[in-house]
Amino acid sequence: MTIGKEMYDLCAKLFPYCRSITGDGVRKTLHDLKAVVPEMTLHEVPSGTRVFDWTVPKEWRIRDAWIKNSKGEKVLDFHETNLRVMGYSLPLDEKMSLDELKKIIYTQPDQPDVIPYVTSYYKERSGFCMTQLEKDALPEDTYHAYIDSELFDGSLTYGEVILPGETDDEILLSTYDCHPSMANNELSGPAVSVYLAKWLKTLPHRHYTYRFVYIPETIGSITYMSQGDHLAHMKKHVKAGFNLSCVGDDRTYTYVASRYGDTLADRVAKNVLHFHYPKYEARSFLYRGSDERQYNAPGIELPVCAVCRSKYGEYPEYHTSKDDMGLISPSGLEGAYRAYQLMLEALEANRTYRVTCYGEPQLGKRGLYPTISQKGSYDGIKAMTDLITYADGRNDLIAISDRIGVPVHDLIPIAKKMLDAGLFEEVEE
Amino acid sequence: MTIGKEMYDLCAKLFPYCRSITGDGVRKTLHDLKAVVPEMTLHEVPSGTRVFDWTVPKEWRIRDAWIKNSKGEKVLDFHETNLRVMGYSLPLDEKMSLDELKKIIYTQPDQPDVIPYVTSYYKERSGFCMTQLEKDALPEDTYHAYIDSELFDGSLTYGEVILPGETDDEILLSTYDCHPSMANNELSGPAVSVYLAKWLKTLPHRHYTYRFVYIPETIGSITYMSQGDHLAHMKKHVKAGFNLSCVGDDRTYTYVASRYGDTLADRVAKNVLHFHYPKYEARSFLYRGSDERQYNAPGIELPVCAVCRSKYGEYPEYHTSKDDMGLISPSGLEGAYRAYQLMLEALEANRTYRVTCYGEPQLGKRGLYPTISQKGSYDGIKAMTDLITYADGRNDLIAISDRIGVPVHDLIPIAKKMLDAGLFEEVEE
Amino acid sequence: MTIGKEMYDLCAKLFPYCRSITGDGVRKTLHDLKAVVPEMTLHEVPSGTRVFDWTVPKEWRIRDAWIKNSKGEKVLDFHETNLRVMGYSLPLDEKMSLDELKKIIYTQPDQPDVIPYVTSYYKERSGFCMTQLEKDALPEDTYHAYIDSELFDGSLTYGEVILPGETDDEILLSTYDCHPSMANNELSGPAVSVYLAKWLKTLPHRHYTYRFVYIPETIGSITYMSQGDHLAHMKKHVKAGFNLSCVGDDRTYTYVASRYGDTLADRVAKNVLHFHYPKYEARSFLYRGSDERQYNAPGIELPVCAVCRSKYGEYPEYHTSKDDMGLISPSGLEGAYRAYQLMLEALEANRTYRVTCYGEPQLGKRGLYPTISQKGSYDGIKAMTDLITYADGRNDLIAISDRIGVPVHDLIPIAKKMLDAGLFEEVEE
Repeated sequence: MTIGKEMYDLCAKLFPYCRSITGDGVRKTLHDLKAVVPEMTLHEVPSGTRVFDWTVPKEWRIRDAWIKNSKGEKVLDFHETNLRVMGYSLPLDEKMSLDELKKIIYTQPDQPDVIPYVTSYYKERSGFCMTQLEKDALPEDTYHAYIDSELFDGSLTYGEVILPGETDDEILLSTYDCHPSMANNELSGPAVSVYLAKWLKTLPHRHYTYRFVYIPETIGSITYMSQGDHLAHMKKHVKAGFNLSCVGDDRTYTYVASRYGDTLADRVAKNVLHFHYPKYEARSFLYRGSDERQYNAPGIELPVCAVCRSKYGEYPEYHTSKDDMGLISPSGLEGAYRAYQLMLEALEANRTYRVTCYGEPQLGKRGLYPTISQKGSYDGIKAMTDLITYADGRNDLIAISDRIGVPVHDLIPIAKKMLDAGLFEEVEE
Repeated sequence: MTIGKEMYDLCAKLFPYCRSITGDGVRKTLHDLKAVVPEMTLHEVPSGTRVFDWTVPKEWRIRDAWIKNSKGEKVLDFHETNLRVMGYSLPLDEKMSLDELKKIIYTQPDQPDVIPYVTSYYKERSGFCMTQLEKDALPEDTYHAYIDSELFDGSLTYGEVILPGETDDEILLSTYDCHPSMANNELSGPAVSVYLAKWLKTLPHRHYTYRFVYIPETIGSITYMSQGDHLAHMKKHVKAGFNLSCVGDDRTYTYVASRYGDTLADRVAKNVLHFHYPKYEARSFLYRGSDERQYNAPGIELPVCAVCRSKYGEYPEYHTSKDDMGLISPSGLEGAYRAYQLMLEALEANRTYRVTCYGEPQLGKRGLYPTISQKGSYDGIKAMTDLITYADGRNDLIAISDRIGVPVHDLIPIAKKMLDAGLFEEVEE
Repeated sequence: MTIGKEMYDLCAKLFPYCRSITGDGVRKTLHDLKAVVPEMTLHEVPSGTRVFDWTVPKEWRIRDAWIKNSKGEKVLDFHETNLRVMGYSLPLDEKMSLDELKKIIYTQPDQPDVIPYVTSYYKERSGFCMTQLEKDALPEDTYHAYIDSELFDGSLTYGEVILPGETDDEILLSTYDCHPSMANNELSGPAVSVYLAKWLKTLPHRHYTYRFVYIPETIGSITYMSQGDHLAHMKKHVKAGFNLSCVGDDRTYTYVASRYGDTLADRVAKNVLHFHYPKYEARSFLYRGSDERQYNAPGIELPVCAVCRSKYGEYPEYHTSKDDMGLISPSGLEGAYRAYQLMLEALEANRTYRVTCYGEPQLGKRGLYPTISQKGSYDGIKAMTDLITYADGRNDLIAISDRIGVPVHDLIPIAKKMLDAGLFEEVEE
């Protein structure tokens, strides 16, 4: 089975769970993710905990919800899809006219055939979701609206995987798990994330320590950073980070810059996408939308960007019932997985070298240079001589790759040859 | 009466005065300007005073001038328009042939139907001005050329208005009053300037102290800066300055950069023109032409640029008899007045803020954020979240405006909300 | 006789010599160059000397070489052109079949009618060169291949000319003399170089000390820098340097940047070419190919770029028998000579000035400004006022030239006027 298929099957299993920013849907999801990466630790932060400028909300539990007409027929049923209920809806058990009912039915008027994904985390209310067509077709009647839910002092749950490396320098990979039954904008991120962790565990050496976090969006990243010494530790150690989201479809790749677009994470993302996915799209931080908002916020300022496929907020199925298992695919997930592998491989190998001799080294005596000099005889070694030329202790491999137009992955074996020949030494930046 | 009409009427009143770089024409002009802004102080600097590398010239007085043909008919008369006499002409009372006469008649050959504006401040000579057509039509005759003028040890006059603000930081607004009967390239500048001063006086608070100067061009700005501690004071306190000239017609807006184009004055000018007059034209300092030359000169280096409408030196009527009251208009003057107001308002409000919490502030609990989250629900608050994002103590409002594509005037009320909510603090740069 | 013709004749005299990276061909060449510039000193560095990462190779001497068919007819003869033998070929005296012979015959398959220039400096082997057409036409036969050569412990020879200037700051002009009978990619460089030295000797003053080096390519520049304190001295004193090569044809001019493209050498080259040869072509350091490689190598990092006409490696005749005396011309050589003169003149005059007064100086009282002011009257002095404007102690003449769009050569006499008038002072950068 391809790894794409494995990730797809994981998404399919997780799809029906009714996730929210708190509650058992998240816990079940994390439980299944931990089955892929047993190193995952789970953490609970009680409702009411102050987290920076925010407060951890009450936990939400929902058991059932429906609307019946006067004949007792269900015209809406939570068990069909959990998108039918507005997230964090209060309990409700009330008969009402069509007009009253319509006030608590949410639709996406510009996409009349989709059920929108709607939440009201921070103001208490009740609501249902329908397609605009369904809502418009509701006849005059007396309806019975019912939600069996509760808000109570519980906790917010998050997962964390730390894979230690040879250094304390860290790569952060953050993804979220707070959306109910949607596929690309939810499950693709966690699925690719755990399989990346699984792959990283197989590496004989890891230069970086890897920090994976699995959190509800916004409140989760804020909560996570506010716990213990997380923020101070991350500000000190995280050298590059990525927000994983919407990494499951087969359309384009999209890079969303960090706040100033100039961090190591930006550099490696742009470099890898340029060489391997040259048609990728780029967005400035003005087009941010997910947890890169928190990681880049003033005062936090971690070097975090986002690499997704179709960008959240921009594809038509986003935050609707159409973001289903048909939108993502094994090949879409595997493509994103591979893109992240390429970025992480480039980061793992990224070093700054300096040539150890004055002038060009004599490559010929080391068997690295053509022994016959004739027009055209050096074409095959241009990447090598260009790499040597800029190995002056001021450019890391990514910078050299950008400058000389050769992928980092092609420079890695050359740099190794140079190191082995004693012609390169590593420079601490 | 609109303020545009008031400014136009002021120009009309000042139009006939025979101004030069010294003399009673300037004094009468300043007297009328002071009537609008009584805070104006008038200053006299004696002829012969050394001012940097220059010397204040003798004062010029002219009473009459004409050319008569042999029949005693006037073929040129100073009282028709003061442009008829070259500025600073020596007295003359001489009969001469047509050939001799032609040597002291100046025309604009490439615009045969205009009387050019010609001066000879720093070399003593006499001269008259005609259209090329008039000059060509002069018949052979013996002419009587007469100028009743004098050059004498007098003084150079300038006006100054200081409007104190809450800080010692200053905004400089400089304009000149040394051209005879021309409208756009002369009277528009002083008219808009005094009405800006009048408006600034009505503000309940002024962050900046405002320094208005009314001077003859070149020699005046040099003289002004050389007096007392003006230069040292201005180098210490002036944070932005503008040269006002050619601000009365209805054509385009033009920005003329400071020497390196990177001062606060440049930044606010480009920002305001970009958002409010997007078709404005921009010129580098290579196209300078007025007192920005002196304010930007090596050793002086004040942050001064120019914002005009049709740029001096570039519009066809410039420095000719066609630059008359028909070239400027109430709407033209009021447009420039409004552009300067926008720039000054942006400067007054321009601050550098820093968010007071880690991560994004929770706007919802303060009623600043939609409580229902659904695709599209955040469109209305994008300016606010973008402002917060870059409020990291490193960008002033103008820089943020440039970066996020929202006018400064739209950011001002949002910044106030954030300050009131305790979410922003001001940072000293 | 024009200087172009003199240079051409020198090339013609040198053309037949069988140069290589060592040996008497080089010595004869240097002897003839020294006849133009008697200040030249010649130096021998013994075979086996360690030079940075390299070792000076054995000296190569060749007396004769041919291939005969079974009838004793020569089918290849070294005396026709020295390109017929692979450089550094070992002695050979052997009969062989056509198949065996073909293994040691080198051609340029993509240019079937040229004899390629081929060497094997650092691996010992024997070889001949033919056109592809000749090789293909060889009939089955038993051939006698003969090379009368030897490799022995001798020395590498280089020439050096130092022309002292008023300061220790140096300009480096490097060219090479290791190619056999080729005209543009060899002899044009030394010819233009010695005539530039001859011209510099005639200057009444030289601000810079000039260092000319005449070396075999690659091994020569490495050897040269490794000798005595050359490298340390050059790193301290060389302010700009140029590699002279391929400066004899009549096609374009080409600038090859230094490693980061931002040295004084780059600045003057781009400036002069922009104004005087606006159709010139520019290449980044990724297109380097000659001794600029060594001068720019990590750890050496001298400010050296290259200015050539048709760029080495890019013109079709490069490194073939077609790079002959018909490819270069007196006008081609003289054009390059003139381009270098312009660059050196610009460097000699390049200073950083500061205006000595506040504000604009009063040019009128010094006779440097029109005394009549009228629209258009200042057009003729714009270069002067623009120069003054940026003479603030932060821009050298080349930087001002770039900024104001006026050639350095037009600024030099203006700067002199300003100095003479006491309006400029020189600033040490």
